[in-house]
Amino acid sequence: MLDAARELTIAHGFSGLRLEHVAARAGVGKATIYRRWPSKQALALDLLLELAMPHIAVDDVGDTAAEVLACVTNAIGALTTTPFGPVIRALLSEIAVDPSLGDPFRETVVRARRLEVAAVVRRGIERGDLAPAADSELAADLLIGPVYFRLVFGGALDEAFAGEVASVFARAYAPPELG
Amino acid sequence: MLDAARELTIAHGFSGLRLEHVAARAGVGKATIYRRWPSKQALALDLLLELAMPHIAVDDVGDTAAEVLACVTNAIGALTTTPFGPVIRALLSEIAVDPSLGDPFRETVVRARRLEVAAVVRRGIERGDLAPAADSELAADLLIGPVYFRLVFGGALDEAFAGEVASVFARAYAPPELG
Repeated sequence: MLDAARELTIAHGFSGLRLEHVAARAGVGKATIYRRWPSKQALALDLLLELAMPHIAVDDVGDTAAEVLACVTNAIGALTTTPFGPVIRALLSEIAVDPSLGDPFRETVVRARRLEVAAVVRRGIERGDLAPAADSELAADLLIGPVYFRLVFGGALDEAFAGEVASVFARAYAPPELG
Repeated sequence: MLDAARELTIAHGFSGLRLEHVAARAGVGKATIYRRWPSKQALALDLLLELAMPHIAVDDVGDTAAEVLACVTNAIGALTTTPFGPVIRALLSEIAVDPSLGDPFRETVVRARRLEVAAVVRRGIERGDLAPAADSELAADLLIGPVYFRLVFGGALDEAFAGEVASVFARAYAPPELG
């Protein structure tokens, strides 16, 4: 059923998503759909969770630069090589204007992403690779904001871009030089 | 007519925007609307241009830190204190998925913003306040990407946030220390 929802969302956007069309496409009764999702916002949230969550974790590999870069490349990978890209593009406006979708999305996917990126920053501080003042609260905005900016407003989402975004963050929060 | 289009876009989103409704609300004939805008994409673009363009210029005030900060605060001001905020939220998905709106938007508003931010960076380099390697191509992504990230995904769009985003950029591209 989520496959059907994904195809309809990509093809027609949130306004074109209808629970009865999802039922028809998935070959199930409408009652089955409505039992599971009381609204299309609930269905869209489940779809986003399924597509986003596998791309959030950033493993502790003992290398701060690599982990900071992974924060950026994970987001780019999900947006450019998986159905999360077309689905989130179709749902960005609804997330931004409709709290019945936006609030639970922010409390799950965005929160998980912020926590994961903050953990990378904390590990970097502990290793002495980032200054103690490095702002773990702001890290997701700085590392992933530019990615979403290009997703909507244009520009290459490539390795050079990811490398420069990560490097700007690492330089801005470089530890004070010993001396 | 653009006022009518603005109200309908904010209330109903792009999918709820209809040229005949704009005509009815503005009290003009449908032919008048269709003569000016052959499609609702063309109408949405004019609306975006009218609302965005007054907030793009960053004056040369002889102070690089102030100008870098203005790149961020101009965007925040437009999004939080003018109708550009609710209109762009309603149109983000359409800009991201529909080239008939997205391409001309990127070639006008986004291009103007990128050029203006790049000019700030070039002035900063000339003044010796930013390193010659400071990337004027990437500056809009780094300074304004975090603003749009918070617009959609949550977080305060306040002075503290603007200051930290600007400061991260300035520190990452600080000129090499003399010595």
